[in-house]
Amino acid sequence: MAIVAFYSEVYEPLAWRQALLECDPELNFQVWGEFIAPKDVDVLLAWRPPDGMLKTLPNLKLLQCLGAGFDQLRGRSDLDGGFQIARIVDDDQTAGMVEYALAGVLDFHRQLYLYRDQADRSAWKEWPRSSASQREVGLLGMGTMGAAIARALVTLGFSVRGLSRTRGSIDGVRWFGADDIGAFADGLDMAICVLSLNKANTGILDRRFFERMRRGAAVINIGRGAHLVETDLLAALDSGQLAWARLDVMAPEPLPAISPLWRHPRIEITPHIATSLLPHAVARAIVENIHRVRAGLPPVGAVSRSQLAL
Amino acid sequence: MAIVAFYSEVYEPLAWRQALLECDPELNFQVWGEFIAPKDVDVLLAWRPPDGMLKTLPNLKLLQCLGAGFDQLRGRSDLDGGFQIARIVDDDQTAGMVEYALAGVLDFHRQLYLYRDQADRSAWKEWPRSSASQREVGLLGMGTMGAAIARALVTLGFSVRGLSRTRGSIDGVRWFGADDIGAFADGLDMAICVLSLNKANTGILDRRFFERMRRGAAVINIGRGAHLVETDLLAALDSGQLAWARLDVMAPEPLPAISPLWRHPRIEITPHIATSLLPHAVARAIVENIHRVRAGLPPVGAVSRSQLAL
Repeated sequence: MAIVAFYSEVYEPLAWRQALLECDPELNFQVWGEFIAPKDVDVLLAWRPPDGMLKTLPNLKLLQCLGAGFDQLRGRSDLDGGFQIARIVDDDQTAGMVEYALAGVLDFHRQLYLYRDQADRSAWKEWPRSSASQREVGLLGMGTMGAAIARALVTLGFSVRGLSRTRGSIDGVRWFGADDIGAFADGLDMAICVLSLNKANTGILDRRFFERMRRGAAVINIGRGAHLVETDLLAALDSGQLAWARLDVMAPEPLPAISPLWRHPRIEITPHIATSLLPHAVARAIVENIHRVRAGLPPVGAVSRSQLAL
Repeated sequence: MAIVAFYSEVYEPLAWRQALLECDPELNFQVWGEFIAPKDVDVLLAWRPPDGMLKTLPNLKLLQCLGAGFDQLRGRSDLDGGFQIARIVDDDQTAGMVEYALAGVLDFHRQLYLYRDQADRSAWKEWPRSSASQREVGLLGMGTMGAAIARALVTLGFSVRGLSRTRGSIDGVRWFGADDIGAFADGLDMAICVLSLNKANTGILDRRFFERMRRGAAVINIGRGAHLVETDLLAALDSGQLAWARLDVMAPEPLPAISPLWRHPRIEITPHIATSLLPHAVARAIVENIHRVRAGLPPVGAVSRSQLAL
């Protein structure tokens, strides 16, 4: 009987087993390391399987990524099998990104990072407040997640800009094309990066970008670590051009304990938790993909080899 | 010519002068301490004028409070003049409360306070995430501000309860009457107090309330300091019944530097900044109230002496 194998360095297998078996009690779900017949594995559920693992599965039909991104698969040596690759974008996962982005925007907008700092000195002092409408917030990336964040920010009254290769339309959002990044950055109070990583946007959050933002601006990175030029961020914070950064993604991860980012007083680090898949939220979609590839159909959320080459 | 006098320990008079004169260039706006003829003052703009000040103004027609609350006026000795009292509730001020409440809910919901704590030790570790729908958030107080916060939380997918003397209706909100506070508190993950202070609700956030919440719950206080029993909060945090609190209001304010609240690792203090009046947002409403009382009309937002006696 065909095996659905599960490999993850972060997710708890028991919760996934339970959620998937609730959708299909017949599934032969096995955790990597516990099962014994690689040739029987036709589906692998994983986020970042070790390079080479896929070559050990001769009858693999589907690599189902446990997440929305797929850049973590770039450059590996074992993608030339006949299997399909699929990613998941679900509403709950998008909601996680919206929550994380809003938490960061509100923390900066309401200067809570300053109040935390002065509370350490038992200081009771009020700083001037701005209206949300006075804040220019720019989203780098307007896919499913960027658009959802933009909508939430518009609802709260922020002035919102979106940077995107393809032009869309959301009430209250000003769109900028990739060529127009200078105008997009001009006078921004906050920049939120939710881009997928590719060669063209590696290092997009750099000195030139920061210098066009308003003095004392903030950066939130929930794209990928490589979108940000760390040394440029540190220089901009130290000069006062930027006032604050919250970073959820690093290059590499985990962020090494010796990194100066950990100890910078104006940088807050979270360990890639902006969002994650909750098993109960995505089990049905994954089980459907398993049934689809076993019936010879393409999976939902298919990622092509050419997308991986960008 | 009648004088509009301005007294505030927190607001910057120049910004108010400018915003009010833009609405009516004829206003004789004078900052307390700079003008010389108390008998000419017919309007006082203030939040918490020193007790006795009102008796020095024999021709006062209006005490215009610079805020939505009025409990700060209770118990003073100089309210028996013939003047009217008015408060202001405006959309921008309400938006400030919504922003502050959301920032706190999201910080707790996404465990950012835990991530800040472990980042101090350069620790990269992910904690399990919950969906907003799994979080029960209770609002104590469902007036203009409580209702606006409730709506914002429902939009983000939280499970929301409201405690209120008068029953209203907001999609997705479960209402509880004041008699039903036990059922309201049962199993709450977060309690947000936005009540006006009166004798009946003083100390409403106490041991009994905390014990009915879910273990590891959080409290956000943006009502008044006296709503919270400080010793009960400290005991609940130390026992683990509560995991976190963010407090914007204290009794007394400013919070004394020797208070144990400042240094508790699970308490975050802000100096009564959840919201504030922005001059440009309320100048027109204040100027209209000045014109109304000078024309013998009641002010908008009038507060009666009997409300002050509650």
